[in-house]
Amino acid sequence: MFQCVGLMGTWKLADNTATDFLDLNHWLTMARRCEAAGVDFLFFADDYGYPVVDGGLPATAIRGGVQFPKGDPLAILPALAAVTEKLGLVTTLSTMVEQPPMVARKMATLDHMTNGRIGWNVVTGAGQNASARLFGAAMTGHDQRYEIAADHVDLSLKLWEGCWDEGGLVVDRESGIYADPEKVREIEHYGPHFSSQGVLTVPPGPQRTPMLFQAGASAPGRDLAAKYAEAVFLAAEVGALTEQIADIRRRAQQYGRDPHSIKFLIAGTFIVGATESDAWAIRERQLATRTLDDAAASYAFFTGLDLATMDPDKPLDPSAAKTETGRTNVERFLGPDAPTVRQILEEFQRNSVMGSPFIGDAQQVADQAEATIAATGADGFLVQPDHTGTFDSFIDLIMPELQARGLVQTDRPAMTLRERLLGTGTPHLAADHPGAAYRNGAAAHR
Amino acid sequence: MFQCVGLMGTWKLADNTATDFLDLNHWLTMARRCEAAGVDFLFFADDYGYPVVDGGLPATAIRGGVQFPKGDPLAILPALAAVTEKLGLVTTLSTMVEQPPMVARKMATLDHMTNGRIGWNVVTGAGQNASARLFGAAMTGHDQRYEIAADHVDLSLKLWEGCWDEGGLVVDRESGIYADPEKVREIEHYGPHFSSQGVLTVPPGPQRTPMLFQAGASAPGRDLAAKYAEAVFLAAEVGALTEQIADIRRRAQQYGRDPHSIKFLIAGTFIVGATESDAWAIRERQLATRTLDDAAASYAFFTGLDLATMDPDKPLDPSAAKTETGRTNVERFLGPDAPTVRQILEEFQRNSVMGSPFIGDAQQVADQAEATIAATGADGFLVQPDHTGTFDSFIDLIMPELQARGLVQTDRPAMTLRERLLGTGTPHLAADHPGAAYRNGAAAHR
Repeated sequence: MFQCVGLMGTWKLADNTATDFLDLNHWLTMARRCEAAGVDFLFFADDYGYPVVDGGLPATAIRGGVQFPKGDPLAILPALAAVTEKLGLVTTLSTMVEQPPMVARKMATLDHMTNGRIGWNVVTGAGQNASARLFGAAMTGHDQRYEIAADHVDLSLKLWEGCWDEGGLVVDRESGIYADPEKVREIEHYGPHFSSQGVLTVPPGPQRTPMLFQAGASAPGRDLAAKYAEAVFLAAEVGALTEQIADIRRRAQQYGRDPHSIKFLIAGTFIVGATESDAWAIRERQLATRTLDDAAASYAFFTGLDLATMDPDKPLDPSAAKTETGRTNVERFLGPDAPTVRQILEEFQRNSVMGSPFIGDAQQVADQAEATIAATGADGFLVQPDHTGTFDSFIDLIMPELQARGLVQTDRPAMTLRERLLGTGTPHLAADHPGAAYRNGAAAHR
Repeated sequence: MFQCVGLMGTWKLADNTATDFLDLNHWLTMARRCEAAGVDFLFFADDYGYPVVDGGLPATAIRGGVQFPKGDPLAILPALAAVTEKLGLVTTLSTMVEQPPMVARKMATLDHMTNGRIGWNVVTGAGQNASARLFGAAMTGHDQRYEIAADHVDLSLKLWEGCWDEGGLVVDRESGIYADPEKVREIEHYGPHFSSQGVLTVPPGPQRTPMLFQAGASAPGRDLAAKYAEAVFLAAEVGALTEQIADIRRRAQQYGRDPHSIKFLIAGTFIVGATESDAWAIRERQLATRTLDDAAASYAFFTGLDLATMDPDKPLDPSAAKTETGRTNVERFLGPDAPTVRQILEEFQRNSVMGSPFIGDAQQVADQAEATIAATGADGFLVQPDHTGTFDSFIDLIMPELQARGLVQTDRPAMTLRERLLGTGTPHLAADHPGAAYRNGAAAHR
């Protein structure tokens, strides 16, 4: 879910309501519908960026509403906790913008406010070139951003796992003991990018550490996922997905983690109608809202590259892979069968950063989705908003079909997000997760 | 309002519910009650700090729950927007922790989500010594923190006032124009502490700039208030309040602002009972919960000074005024009639950073409050939570009395917070506010 009008021109459709993204009721309605339908969680993408071409925000992006404007998901998410009881709530926070004590405190407080339904999607920032200018900072190199992210998560884990032992919160009015000084402590951390001596001022919530998500398929992105993620969000075609999932599982094993403890969720675009031809009619209406200029602005946002300045009949120059903005959508178009710049633009106009959509009636898209899961070894989908900017068509048409097939369970009771997705019977990090090593004083400031 | 158990030991009382501060329902109930009673706004204090004595969080503060633990108000506030329609929502964000584009985006999004009911309390951070250690930063000098704050607010104002002209958001599905490139622009800012070239990705909400609050009575604090604040929160005794208000109004005039456009709100502690003796009984119960150790930990939080290491029979050494943590509660105890360290501890045990409470039945406390307003020239009170950790006794006993006297109006319709408090008939910054100078391209990146 994006707290904006969505990827490119779909907002122009008469039945699209994503244009209400600055109205709280839009979100309250969406959250209530998702919960009622038995959806596991709502996921917010986020970044401070926007397309930058030729040194600034291009008129195309302003006029077309391409990755611009957008709001702050954390100004919305707590409101959704107030109107739901089971729905997981996952938000992105960039390790380039938020300092570790900020992430730790926000997430720890939200773990309480949501009764353990919170997740953090760890990213190093999208639209990083725009974001760096906005924050008055030099652009940080792509791979270095992942080193920073690893140090960031490491410190955040110390704050979540290392400050409060189980039973540290006492709240005994008789004896006047609020918390037990033997079980509450400052941690210390002297990493390559972050240092800290301090205590997380929030006692642990139901999950203690929020459920950890990661997105980003570059080599350092996969490595970060393998080390820390409990769920990974991927967007690509089947072949690439299969390779990425196998590779991340391999890397996880090298870090001493159970490779099957990580859940892989594929970006799923479902274009569904009462009939197959209805679905294709929606697809045609949707594609008609997107111009090649929109596609170029969107591509610039994700990669920092301006395709309009390149020869449309040649593939990307291999040096494009050195972009410091985002590499997933550059590497995707390199290699032996590399498409031309024009073909990249056309593909971006169709699908932007997502893989090809599933199109058809409910049975057909369910078949396609099942086949994708079987082929890739993934665990599920991160369903993308439909042409209306909501999940209504998925909920109304596809969920019943998946339920009939026994592929989703829509009547599960309230539980933590980690228990809901991992099914391991514990709300806390697994024992083989690096965060578990910081428990019971192991990260203490002496 | 503090998203914690409150100032010192009141949480130990059997009828105190502030211990539920990590339960969202506690806040939803409070917000609904305040709204139903016609309260203007709910105010969240905030900081990442905690008492630091002898290089770390002292056992006293952990055991007694003194300024520790505490949560993140922004993980709570949006939920309150979902269950209220009129209540203003003001939160503190520190200019030492939050970067200007973060503050600008959070507040702009919240201005939408609350329908213009949001306010920002600009602070340079409380518990700054603890906060600096937690963020792995060197302690920034007291006066320099205010220079940073001024630069921060200046850039934030450019982002709110300078990026989007009125009418910039179009959302015309027919023509496919989302926003007008002639009316949306990047600003630029090269200040002594912050630089930025960028655009606020959030279109303006009802107020555009959140209503601006300031707290902090040191000389640089007053100057910041005089330049930027629309409402100022002060806590002191009548004599000091009168002087501070007159001084800030004088400084505002020097900045070319109408000195009466700033509203002054006094921290008001109301201890009320059905009878005067009931009220005094509550006061006694409350005082019995607070030890001198609690008072010392609380004083250390606000000032960075450890009174336990000083001679109890002497006043503070004048060099204490050079503390880099917080000066309001040092300067308060210096001068010709300076109390001894023991007397400071006793005063802090009674009232912490607040002035003396109003104590009595509803008529008596209303009389006392009226007299304080008349003596100081203030405009109203920032009511502190009562011994139960809520505003219930104020709402149930005092609001009817104030209403009978025509001092509060409890049935006003929904409007922006700025209109509610300033009554100027506009939801936007006044023309003589420095932020108004950045409108219509005056802060543009050329």
